[in-house]
Amino acid sequence: MSRTVRFHELGAPDVLRLEEVEVGGPGPGELLIRVEAIGLNRAEASFRAGHYIEPVRRFPARLGAEASGVVEAAGPGVTGFARGQAVSVVPSFSMNDYGVYGEHAIVPASAVLHRPDSLDAVTGAAVWMPYVTAYGALVELGGMRAGDTVVLTAASSSVGLAAIQVARRMGAVPIATTRGRAKAGRLLRAGAEEVIVTGEEDVTAGILRITGGRGADLVLDAVAGPGVTALAGGLAPGGRLFVYGGLSGRDTPFPPLGTMRARSMHGYVMFETTTDPVRLRRAEAFVSSGLRSGAFVPVVDRVFALEEIVEAHRYLESGDQFGKIVVTAGGRP
Amino acid sequence: MSRTVRFHELGAPDVLRLEEVEVGGPGPGELLIRVEAIGLNRAEASFRAGHYIEPVRRFPARLGAEASGVVEAAGPGVTGFARGQAVSVVPSFSMNDYGVYGEHAIVPASAVLHRPDSLDAVTGAAVWMPYVTAYGALVELGGMRAGDTVVLTAASSSVGLAAIQVARRMGAVPIATTRGRAKAGRLLRAGAEEVIVTGEEDVTAGILRITGGRGADLVLDAVAGPGVTALAGGLAPGGRLFVYGGLSGRDTPFPPLGTMRARSMHGYVMFETTTDPVRLRRAEAFVSSGLRSGAFVPVVDRVFALEEIVEAHRYLESGDQFGKIVVTAGGRP
Repeated sequence: MSRTVRFHELGAPDVLRLEEVEVGGPGPGELLIRVEAIGLNRAEASFRAGHYIEPVRRFPARLGAEASGVVEAAGPGVTGFARGQAVSVVPSFSMNDYGVYGEHAIVPASAVLHRPDSLDAVTGAAVWMPYVTAYGALVELGGMRAGDTVVLTAASSSVGLAAIQVARRMGAVPIATTRGRAKAGRLLRAGAEEVIVTGEEDVTAGILRITGGRGADLVLDAVAGPGVTALAGGLAPGGRLFVYGGLSGRDTPFPPLGTMRARSMHGYVMFETTTDPVRLRRAEAFVSSGLRSGAFVPVVDRVFALEEIVEAHRYLESGDQFGKIVVTAGGRP
Repeated sequence: MSRTVRFHELGAPDVLRLEEVEVGGPGPGELLIRVEAIGLNRAEASFRAGHYIEPVRRFPARLGAEASGVVEAAGPGVTGFARGQAVSVVPSFSMNDYGVYGEHAIVPASAVLHRPDSLDAVTGAAVWMPYVTAYGALVELGGMRAGDTVVLTAASSSVGLAAIQVARRMGAVPIATTRGRAKAGRLLRAGAEEVIVTGEEDVTAGILRITGGRGADLVLDAVAGPGVTALAGGLAPGGRLFVYGGLSGRDTPFPPLGTMRARSMHGYVMFETTTDPVRLRRAEAFVSSGLRSGAFVPVVDRVFALEEIVEAHRYLESGDQFGKIVVTAGGRP
C-alpha cells in the first residue's frame, strides 16, 4: 500500500484526499517509480476543477504528470532503466491514465528521463515541464533566433521564468509582462530585459515602446482571453503568438485581419514536444546542456509535503508564486 | 479629361459616380495607364462602405486596385516600360493613394507587370489578384506540398477557383465549401475533389469524412467569424488556417486550446506577397508559367461596362458570382 492523492468529485482544492492505495506492478512499457518530489502545474488544478481541455473520465481520479524519483521496477519490454536509477517524469500522458501525486507511481517508460547527478529531487521535479514547454514553443516551433524580441505573459510562472532563460541562452531579448508592480523587480533580476506592468501600461504601447516601434517576433501567452488582441497589436510582421494556457478563463478572439495580417496565432501544448520522440530527444539535450552550462537555473518557489497537498493547490491557484511549486513525496523504498 | 469612378460619401453601390476628372501626368516612380479592363474585388465594396481594414481618408475618393491596360507614359526614374506596352496592375497600394476605376489611371510602377501576349485585356484583369492571393497563402507561407488536403471556403470566388487550380498544379487535394447545393456541381467541374455544402453538413464532420479522419493540412478562409471553429476542428496536427477575408462580417474567435493544439491561424492579405519584390517575382513566375502550361485557366463570370459600375458592385455584393467580375473601361488612346 502506498499513500496516493485522489479525488472523488470535481471541485476546489479540498476535494483532494491522501489515501492508501495498492499501486501494483508495472505493465508492458511501464515503470514503477518511487516518487521523491512532484512538480505542480496549472493543468492539474484545471483537471481537478473540471476545466481542463480533457475531462476527468472516472472517479476516484488521480492527478499529476511531473515528478522526480527512483526506478523501483520495470515492466516487460522496458529497456534502458534499472532499479535504483534517478529519473524524472515528464508530462506526456493523460491524467486519466496515470498520475504521479503519491509515494509511488506507475508511468509509461516513454515519459521517463534519466536525471543528471547534479539535479536533486526537488529541482528534478521542477525542470522539465517549464524548460521543455518554453523550448518547444519558442525554439522547436517558433524558430527563435538571436536578436528576436520575445514577450512572455504571466512571466512569474515556472514556464515564464524558464522562457526568460531560454531566450537569453539563444541571444534573444525577453520582455516580461506582469499584472502588478510587485513582481517587476524580481523579473528583471531573473533576466527580463524589460517588464510591462499590465495594470499600468497598455501592452501594445509597451511592446512598441520597448522595440522602437518594430514589434515583437514571438509571444508566449499563458493567459489567452481578450488580452490577445493587445498582444497581437505588438507583433512585428511575421510575428507569432503562441497560446499555451488559459489563465483568464475567458473566450479568446482572433484579432481583426488588420491586426493579424502577416501574423499568426498558434495553439500549443507541451505534449506536442514530449510525445514526439525526435522532438523530446532534442528537448532533453537542450535542457540538459543548459543545466550543465549554468544557463538554466530552475526557480523553485515553495516546497510542500504530500500531507499539505490541499494547501499546495490553494497556493498554486493564488497566482502569488514566483517559480515552481514542488511537493515532496518521501516515498519509502 | 478622363472618365473616372469616384465617391463622395461612404455607402451602398449607388454612391459610385462616373465623373470627368483631370488625371494628370505620372510622377517619379509612376506610370500612366490607359485602362482597358478592371478586376473587381470584395475589398473595394468594403472600402466604399467604410468596412475595409483601412478607412477612406478623403473625399472624393477613388477605387480599384487591379486592372489591365496599356502604358501611356512613364514618370521620372521608371525603367523597363515603354509607351504602348500591354500591362496588368496588381493590387499592392492603398486605395487612398491610387485607384484604377476609370479610363486612365496613375499607378506606382512597382504594381505593374508585363502582360503576356496570350492574355487579352479582360483576362489580364482577372488573373493576378486571385492567383497571387492563393499562391502567397498556400505556397509561399503555407508550404503546401503534394498530397496535402486544402479546404477552400467561399470557393466560387475568383480566389477560391484560382486556389483549386493552384492546389491541383502542386499535386494537392482541394476541397471546396459552398453555402448551398446550387454551385456544388460547378465546383466539382472546376476541379474540386469534393464539395462540402455547409447548409447540409457540419464542416468538421465533412472534412474528417473526406480525409479519413486525418484532417486538412491547410484552410484558406474568406469568411472568418464563428465558422472558423468548425474549420479548425477539421485541421490535421500541424495544420494551418489562413484567414484572408471577412465575408461573415462577424467577430472571429480563436478556437479553444483543445482544438488549436498543434494548429495555427494566420491573418493574410495579398499585400504580403505583392509588396515584397522577392515574393512578387516568384509569384509572377508561378502564375505566368501556370498560364502558359494551361494549368491555370482564369474564370471570368460577368463583364460590365464602366457606365454599369453601380450594377457591377451590386452584383459583387450579391454573392451569386462564380469567378471574377470584370468591368471594361475602353479608355480612349
